[in-house]
Amino acid sequence: MIFIGERINGLFKDVAEAIRQRDPRPIQRLAVEQTRAGASFLDVNTGPAVDDPASAMPWLVRVIEEVVDTPLCLDSPKPEVIEAGLKAVTKGRPIINSTLAEREHLERYFPLAREYGAYLIALTMNRRGVSRDAADRLALAMEIVVAADEFGFPVRDLFLDPLVLPVNVGQEHIPEVLETLRQIKTLADPPPRTVVGLSNVSQRCPHRSLLNRTFLAMAMAAGLDAAVADVLDEELRQVAAAGEILTGREIYSEAFLEKGLARREVNAGDRGPGEAVVGDPLVAGGG
Amino acid sequence: MIFIGERINGLFKDVAEAIRQRDPRPIQRLAVEQTRAGASFLDVNTGPAVDDPASAMPWLVRVIEEVVDTPLCLDSPKPEVIEAGLKAVTKGRPIINSTLAEREHLERYFPLAREYGAYLIALTMNRRGVSRDAADRLALAMEIVVAADEFGFPVRDLFLDPLVLPVNVGQEHIPEVLETLRQIKTLADPPPRTVVGLSNVSQRCPHRSLLNRTFLAMAMAAGLDAAVADVLDEELRQVAAAGEILTGREIYSEAFLEKGLARREVNAGDRGPGEAVVGDPLVAGGG
Repeated sequence: MIFIGERINGLFKDVAEAIRQRDPRPIQRLAVEQTRAGASFLDVNTGPAVDDPASAMPWLVRVIEEVVDTPLCLDSPKPEVIEAGLKAVTKGRPIINSTLAEREHLERYFPLAREYGAYLIALTMNRRGVSRDAADRLALAMEIVVAADEFGFPVRDLFLDPLVLPVNVGQEHIPEVLETLRQIKTLADPPPRTVVGLSNVSQRCPHRSLLNRTFLAMAMAAGLDAAVADVLDEELRQVAAAGEILTGREIYSEAFLEKGLARREVNAGDRGPGEAVVGDPLVAGGG
Repeated sequence: MIFIGERINGLFKDVAEAIRQRDPRPIQRLAVEQTRAGASFLDVNTGPAVDDPASAMPWLVRVIEEVVDTPLCLDSPKPEVIEAGLKAVTKGRPIINSTLAEREHLERYFPLAREYGAYLIALTMNRRGVSRDAADRLALAMEIVVAADEFGFPVRDLFLDPLVLPVNVGQEHIPEVLETLRQIKTLADPPPRTVVGLSNVSQRCPHRSLLNRTFLAMAMAAGLDAAVADVLDEELRQVAAAGEILTGREIYSEAFLEKGLARREVNAGDRGPGEAVVGDPLVAGGG
């Protein structure tokens, strides 16, 4: 499971406040904690309440890169904010999060991802909103895959996100999302990767961690590759470790859980400026 | 999720000892505990070490029925032991656990199940052993469904068990089991029900509960109806409650978890002899 740590997001009050004050410490603490907990990428989102996202984003990139080598997932609905972040990145291959399945967006984001050597998350939705059925989501997924080919973007660097809605308002979507995840793997060879915003499933629900980890197990069985998720939730990481074994992604060993929960090295502190490794957690030995 | 409590099984030392001594107390305690924890049925298996299973089985049925109304799942490889148990049952519709997909077995078990009004668990394996692929398991499942029709046995009263092997020796079977569960639902309309021996997945592994509940979530998403399982494991029941919501079997409510974990009434103690309700947890209002 490729975990993209969700916590550096201005929707969280502590992050929004740190951005407004340009106080690097809360951001850097979250970067280190999520990296230690096993995040392969760190999502970076200024949130909607920040006045100057196009200057906040590169500031976030810089302060995070001061303390960790973990590559970033630049998250904004505004391409200019994404690009400001991409210009600031010096470590690893970032992810762009995200484009809609809308011609105008695809024309902007595929060339941008190519220019900066980034992965790209594409939502299987357009301006009309989220599709209800798996078939509609898959039709949009296919449009995205065809566009990737048109723009010369490798399908393996594409993450399709079928859009998870909160179970309390979109319960009927959940089986459709699982079916979409399964069928996305049949759209191309090699297939695109898949990603979900995991915590969405439990927005404003009680027992969030339980809903998140139960859904994670289901989604892993349906072929899910990555999740923007609360990597600081140890029970979630336990389920991910068990899921790696049960889906055959990892060969069984008695130490599977210890391996799955091992604390990651943070790294950046051990190097001088300019010595940073440009890592890629999706390539064996890459980061 | 239809939970069949696994604990009254002579493979557990306390149960084997209680059977040998004909001491009803440990058996009755397990019957009450599992019923309170939400078991819809109680598996009853003398285990291989008991000398006289055909007399131990009806004794077990009698002592369990003294304390609970929960219907039983009579579990033995020997049809004469099953039949001795069936003759002793006075409460609810029992389950026969189990027949192989072998002509001689099907000829014995379908008429037996019809005679006693029992549900029937059928394993998608024959004398040659467990199939590796989903396709082979499904071919056997189809043989069983065809035989059910031949013997006039309702397909909805049939539980197909695709056979879960321990992940430490049969890791490659697990995705095949999930695929089998999914496809069994396409074999007939209405489809047969599905069941697994859940704890098998973690036999002789560390972190058994974690493996069991992660696999349960995956299997529920694949359409699993029932599990012979450790219902005393509260974390397992939590995942089942979340799974009921995420798979749309229960309408979401904020109290989903409390509802899923509610302690069941035990009942039998509240009634005089002859007043027992013949219940069926698979029929709404049936028990």
